[in-house]
Amino acid sequence: MSQPLIVITNDDGIRAKGIRALIEVAQNFGELLIVAPDKAQSGMGHAITVNNIIRVEKSPIFPELNAFSCTGTPVDCVKMAAYLAKDRKPDLVLSGVNHGANTSLNVLYSGTMSAAVEGFIEGIPSIGFSLDNFDADADFEPSKLFLEKIIRTTLETKFENGVCLNVNIPAVATEGIHGIKVCRAAEAQWEDEFMERTDNFGRHYYWLAGHFENKDNGEDTDIWAVKNNFVSVVPIQHDLTAFDQIEEIKNIKF
Amino acid sequence: MSQPLIVITNDDGIRAKGIRALIEVAQNFGELLIVAPDKAQSGMGHAITVNNIIRVEKSPIFPELNAFSCTGTPVDCVKMAAYLAKDRKPDLVLSGVNHGANTSLNVLYSGTMSAAVEGFIEGIPSIGFSLDNFDADADFEPSKLFLEKIIRTTLETKFENGVCLNVNIPAVATEGIHGIKVCRAAEAQWEDEFMERTDNFGRHYYWLAGHFENKDNGEDTDIWAVKNNFVSVVPIQHDLTAFDQIEEIKNIKF
Repeated sequence: MSQPLIVITNDDGIRAKGIRALIEVAQNFGELLIVAPDKAQSGMGHAITVNNIIRVEKSPIFPELNAFSCTGTPVDCVKMAAYLAKDRKPDLVLSGVNHGANTSLNVLYSGTMSAAVEGFIEGIPSIGFSLDNFDADADFEPSKLFLEKIIRTTLETKFENGVCLNVNIPAVATEGIHGIKVCRAAEAQWEDEFMERTDNFGRHYYWLAGHFENKDNGEDTDIWAVKNNFVSVVPIQHDLTAFDQIEEIKNIKF
Repeated sequence: MSQPLIVITNDDGIRAKGIRALIEVAQNFGELLIVAPDKAQSGMGHAITVNNIIRVEKSPIFPELNAFSCTGTPVDCVKMAAYLAKDRKPDLVLSGVNHGANTSLNVLYSGTMSAAVEGFIEGIPSIGFSLDNFDADADFEPSKLFLEKIIRTTLETKFENGVCLNVNIPAVATEGIHGIKVCRAAEAQWEDEFMERTDNFGRHYYWLAGHFENKDNGEDTDIWAVKNNFVSVVPIQHDLTAFDQIEEIKNIKF
């Protein structure tokens, strides 16, 4: 029996430390096909490249592996990996490990999680991993035990309706982590601000700033879990239809 | 009582014909604040600009209106509009009219719909409009009656849990449209292909291609409605948690 084909991508780019940690763990589970952005693509959400070309090159970052850097978005990378795999359907899409948490509604903004959602849409079990530490030099070593557990279990389990997991890992030593907690996404949001400045030519510019606000006090959320040193696992789907509002809207006379 | 403050954006850019049709209708309902991309931003999904600056300029396209072109994504435009509105919270976000349908899972890829979802996340009733015609020169006149009806009703209705509507309009004459149908998103998907070519320098490049496949035979879907000359209205929410899978995943021993 052939080994599972595992697609790996991220949104911090193929040079990021987080994808290296993920590759090191995933190598033990199958044959890897790495297609990752050639530059940072944080906040790219579910963007795809429709009005421009995409280039793909064998990556010198992982010379011994089947690894490609791609000029496209994280979602483009998943589409490209499925294309490069030709008649072979990948068995798993892994995205990350992201530098910084992707809890709550950050699933929508995150290129890392959107890549996992894309894998799920294509009928492939998918997992997005994030570490709660934005540093380029964050320590991914303690995460590896949990990457290993969750990848193994996902490969071994038969999910009738497919699976997409959003996994967030606290940035603490392995022994400080209390375990894995299955959660819902917290109902938090960004309070947006823009930094306003003037450039050398006297022209005004803005930079998106703001801070994250969690007003959701539930103890069944991903934010609660990570804050309390659990690895959070949120099952994700891709349909934004507000099913519970259909009847209400049907009653409106447009 | 002051007039409603209505934010308008799109993903085809401030020069597109579709946003002009939307502005012409929306003018009758309140004070407009237009912040739209300075260039086409189709397929940008829920992308935000985090690693770069954003510039905003008074637009010469609509000299008599409160209209700005923005270098950012559609979602950036909504965030920027909320910022420019200062202490005044917008009463409505309108996005579109998109050149081309945004039915089914295209909500995730669409900059037009992601802008509407962003308005909803910020607690503002939001509507994304799309016409089922990709042409730059598409005829938006027949759409105007339905824009008018749906904007009016949304402003007049009190939605307890907020509202975000995905509206798709068939590209036929007004009298050919049978009415407005509240739907769910069809379970369709893209069958991806990449066009492969070589540039003048002998370097290989790809271009995302592929075709849309609908295997969902339901007559309660947006694709069915538009195909059968109804205006489809799908209520949208923003939480991708797969609530019905939480118990299944909890039973897994990671």
